Amino acid sequence: MVLNEYVRDIQDFPKPGIGFKDITPLLADPKAVKASIAQLMSTIKDKNIDKVVGIESRGYFLGTILAYELNAGFVPVRKPGKLPYSTIAASYDLEYGQDTLEIHTDAIKEGECVLIHDDVLATGGTASAVCELVEKLGGEIVQCNFLMELSFLNGRDKLSQYNIYAAINY
Amino acid sequence: MVLNEYVRDIQDFPKPGIGFKDITPLLADPKAVKASIAQLMSTIKDKNIDKVVGIESRGYFLGTILAYELNAGFVPVRKPGKLPYSTIAASYDLEYGQDTLEIHTDAIKEGECVLIHDDVLATGGTASAVCELVEKLGGEIVQCNFLMELSFLNGRDKLSQYNIYAAINY
Repeated sequence: MVLNEYVRDIQDFPKPGIGFKDITPLLADPKAVKASIAQLMSTIKDKNIDKVVGIESRGYFLGTILAYELNAGFVPVRKPGKLPYSTIAASYDLEYGQDTLEIHTDAIKEGECVLIHDDVLATGGTASAVCELVEKLGGEIVQCNFLMELSFLNGRDKLSQYNIYAAINY
Repeated sequence: MVLNEYVRDIQDFPKPGIGFKDITPLLADPKAVKASIAQLMSTIKDKNIDKVVGIESRGYFLGTILAYELNAGFVPVRKPGKLPYSTIAASYDLEYGQDTLEIHTDAIKEGECVLIHDDVLATGGTASAVCELVEKLGGEIVQCNFLMELSFLNGRDKLSQYNIYAAINY
């Protein structure tokens, strides 16, 4: 199955000059979701992952399924003010603007093996901030995986100390 | 397994006087997630669901897993401006404020069997707006299910024409 046939290109979203990769056609097709999960699982399934950290919101779509398949806990990283318990935060530059993300302070225990998941690896700023949060809580980052990677944005440069995997490459 | 032991009460969140049900401890425990999914699946698994509609963002956590288990497509309903393709929108009153939700116009095909999922049934305003969106696109709503229901807010009154199921009742 050629997964990128299920990704729709949207020009000038969310602002002029940006080409957006819309994954809703992939999510709408259970065969495409199963194939995506199989690919993402292929390099991580034997790694004894304790927690999968998904990044709001599109990282939740496949991140929760990965946690379910790995028999791991799922941890949502969220936009500011959304998590109700005590949190730590990290700010970062992203492809179009700046943002902050939060994680619950009790979400990861010291020494837990962590998989970080998001839908897209672009400049790597988001994932890098999430790695910082996970490591502050004592988690060991086993891999950062992504449904797709926009290689031309060189996101791996910001994540050079981590294992990176993407199911679709652009 | 008593699922409500995995839900944490947070007082005065997101604003004073509101008691918030924090499901992150449940999500962090794979046994609790599996038990939740088993309960949610129990009344829907033989209903030939074509699409599971999850409501941003907490409806994505278990909604994507339900779609995966049901071999159905997953459709995210999102806050305004987040979906990149053509959309329709519905506004509604919620427990604390007012909001609008959007769905892609190609997300549901005429006659498809739809399960709507969110984490909490409170006043029913959110789910009712999503039912309106799904029906505008021609979907047949087989069930609205929720991880938990705050029965004292009488959300079922707004959804009286639909089948409702919740795994945890308060």
